[in-house]
Amino acid sequence: MRFSLFVLLSLFLVGPIPTSAGEEASLIIKNANIVTMDQQHRIVRKGVLVVKDTEIAAIGEAALADQYSAPKVIDAGGNILMPGMISLHNHTPMVAFRGMGEYAVANILFDVMFPLEKELLNRELIYVAARHAAMELALGGVTLVTDMYYHEDEVARGTKEVGIRGVLGESVIGFPVVDAPDPYGGLAYAEDFIKAYKDDPLIIPAVAPHAPYTVSPEKLREARALSEKHGVPLLMHMAEFPNEKELIQERFQSMEDGETIIQYLDRVGVLAPNLVAAHVIYADEGDIQILKERGVGVGHNPKSNTKYNMGLAPAWKMYRQGLGIGLGTDGPMSSNQLDIFNVIPFTARIARLRYQDPTAFTPLELVDLATMGGARALDMEDKIGSLEVGKLADMIILDLSAPHMQPNYDVYATIAHSAYPSDVVTTIVNGALVVEDRRLVNVDMEKHQEEWGRVTQRVAEFRKTLAVEPQH
Amino acid sequence: MRFSLFVLLSLFLVGPIPTSAGEEASLIIKNANIVTMDQQHRIVRKGVLVVKDTEIAAIGEAALADQYSAPKVIDAGGNILMPGMISLHNHTPMVAFRGMGEYAVANILFDVMFPLEKELLNRELIYVAARHAAMELALGGVTLVTDMYYHEDEVARGTKEVGIRGVLGESVIGFPVVDAPDPYGGLAYAEDFIKAYKDDPLIIPAVAPHAPYTVSPEKLREARALSEKHGVPLLMHMAEFPNEKELIQERFQSMEDGETIIQYLDRVGVLAPNLVAAHVIYADEGDIQILKERGVGVGHNPKSNTKYNMGLAPAWKMYRQGLGIGLGTDGPMSSNQLDIFNVIPFTARIARLRYQDPTAFTPLELVDLATMGGARALDMEDKIGSLEVGKLADMIILDLSAPHMQPNYDVYATIAHSAYPSDVVTTIVNGALVVEDRRLVNVDMEKHQEEWGRVTQRVAEFRKTLAVEPQH
Repeated sequence: MRFSLFVLLSLFLVGPIPTSAGEEASLIIKNANIVTMDQQHRIVRKGVLVVKDTEIAAIGEAALADQYSAPKVIDAGGNILMPGMISLHNHTPMVAFRGMGEYAVANILFDVMFPLEKELLNRELIYVAARHAAMELALGGVTLVTDMYYHEDEVARGTKEVGIRGVLGESVIGFPVVDAPDPYGGLAYAEDFIKAYKDDPLIIPAVAPHAPYTVSPEKLREARALSEKHGVPLLMHMAEFPNEKELIQERFQSMEDGETIIQYLDRVGVLAPNLVAAHVIYADEGDIQILKERGVGVGHNPKSNTKYNMGLAPAWKMYRQGLGIGLGTDGPMSSNQLDIFNVIPFTARIARLRYQDPTAFTPLELVDLATMGGARALDMEDKIGSLEVGKLADMIILDLSAPHMQPNYDVYATIAHSAYPSDVVTTIVNGALVVEDRRLVNVDMEKHQEEWGRVTQRVAEFRKTLAVEPQH
Repeated sequence: MRFSLFVLLSLFLVGPIPTSAGEEASLIIKNANIVTMDQQHRIVRKGVLVVKDTEIAAIGEAALADQYSAPKVIDAGGNILMPGMISLHNHTPMVAFRGMGEYAVANILFDVMFPLEKELLNRELIYVAARHAAMELALGGVTLVTDMYYHEDEVARGTKEVGIRGVLGESVIGFPVVDAPDPYGGLAYAEDFIKAYKDDPLIIPAVAPHAPYTVSPEKLREARALSEKHGVPLLMHMAEFPNEKELIQERFQSMEDGETIIQYLDRVGVLAPNLVAAHVIYADEGDIQILKERGVGVGHNPKSNTKYNMGLAPAWKMYRQGLGIGLGTDGPMSSNQLDIFNVIPFTARIARLRYQDPTAFTPLELVDLATMGGARALDMEDKIGSLEVGKLADMIILDLSAPHMQPNYDVYATIAHSAYPSDVVTTIVNGALVVEDRRLVNVDMEKHQEEWGRVTQRVAEFRKTLAVEPQH
């Protein structure tokens, strides 16, 4: 009886009772300006977030810290704690080619990228370059990267070594490539890859039919079937080129008169809830409705689309109509920088141009796109994209101390329009520190520099033989 | 005779003779990848640059270092040494308002900016905020900022405390403002300001008639006359709004039928070689010819122009036709970030959209725009914009060690498409260190934080009274 009274008094006077040493947790972050991005867009000032293993166990005011103990406690110093950025489209190993093709961009895919890949790709390049890209991503606050490339098991290896999450799609394409001497050999490669990584805590294996103009309707269906057989995502480029219909028709004679690309893909039967389509520039009102009805997610890549003058995607309309749409960079030759912070100012401006409306995308909507938007596109909105109890602990701390991060009247405006990847001090993925004090936690830097040096030296040698590359 | 032979042998065997302790210099930078941006676009690998007082005294290979001694020697560690970035348009004190007006941007100038300025501007805000902006600029590699605002003597004071160069224009505008209770009172203020700063080593005072729609034709002529009387630059917004002709006509009934804005300003007589015009979005072929013939410089601000959907300036055409054109951000409410690195990717992409041509602006041209382009626009191409003997020592060192700065096959591609302001480790202006190891050399940080806190607190309080501002 006396004890119960004591409990009651304690609750009244000092809040929830701490256990003797506090409830056990794995990580406590305190003194943080927590931007949750939950449905109410709650912000907890001087808040505390508690991680148990891979999940967020509690979020609350300062006093919450007293209820837990953990081997690691981070004082966020009043800085921003927010969900990690989600990148929906990349070809990370192409970071080994970054800075090439900049003087001959008119038809970069066929004139530069495919020839480079034919000559230079091998397992070592893909593994080491994927790790390099993941390092940049982690340092820049990206906690999940969506990738489409070859030897995706090597991409998985490189990405895991850094410690970020990857939705990694093995490419399926209608001509011989480095990991599949026969056209569409990626289907078999993908199945092996999926089996190997199906239960990985960080890697979600996926099937990635390259694009409607490089994959036949039959093989698009096979790719979808494979993804459904294993319950994994399907990734594809879609409606990226102004002449994509002509490319499809030329290659496969499979389009019907007057059909849009989205209508075609719907007829083929590849539009499914597990599909994340990159770009989707050429989509009219009806197409957007089809995508919505089929539950297709969209990765918007304005930096890539404008670099090559591909067009302005209807991203704002898609967002407003409730599609699962988030942001990506596309590969390192297309966006150069791989972080998502720098995609945000482009997203706002390209939408304002596209719709001739300067009110397109508020700062809050932009931050939503980069976090929850990505989660929705991947059908992972119950697992990532916001800081909520029970979700996976993927988050970043943003330093507010640099002059460009001040003043901070509206935290969404600061994140959307002022922040740079260099403001990320801490990156946590799956409850584990990946970046701490702006340093990568898991990477053997000496080993990486040696291997990266070898890989890029080989590329540099080949580059000297290319007429399109200036030798400054 | 024997001595002469010795000299000859020495030259032959070991190059130029070092003096006993070497020729005296003030600063030596060695082991630098020197991107000169001179007319031949020379790059000196593992090079040395020698500064004497305010000027570049020598540039050469590694052995050059032996010929000089200096109280300060910087080992650039193989990183990039390049000319500082030149910003052609800003309103630096408005950094105190950054992040406001983000949710109500439809008519931000008249609905948000002018009311904010009317309520909040005073000498303290202008001085402290100008210093804050200059800190961000210096840290981000901008060595010269062009500004148009009020109490420009306070802007000068704040900018000088940080140590960067400023072309600072006192605003002339047809309504009462903080430093001039009578319309056009800025003309008198400007003359006092010019006299006070005429011989300053860092500040170039200027006259800034605000825009053709806020300054009458008579007062535009007076502003030009004042600038010519004192031999200082003339700064003005020009052809920024889609409805600018209507605004001019409504206010001054001064336009003739069918006249373009540029034709109007030419007829008024304000187009002169010392004029640097900001924006110039609405300019056709004929207008560009007029600007070229009059020697007008242009500041291109694609981040600002697209944020508010003002239009896409013909920057590529102007550059190709040999106009003096460089880059700017516009004020902190328009670009948010004040560095020029982040303007570069926008410049390329906006030009590619405007001209439907993905080859617009090579990386080399982009770096030229940000450095020599700015110098040409300001008619300072004999003094700044490149690293050449006899020029003023305004330069930056860019760190290549972050993953996003690698690989570095083409240094111009790395600078134009990969670099962030956070890659700047060293900023030198007029031969003096302004930023070293990413830290501001001249700023009393404690004093600044206290004053900046006071200024922004006052803005934050007023912000709470504004319906257009969300209270997250």
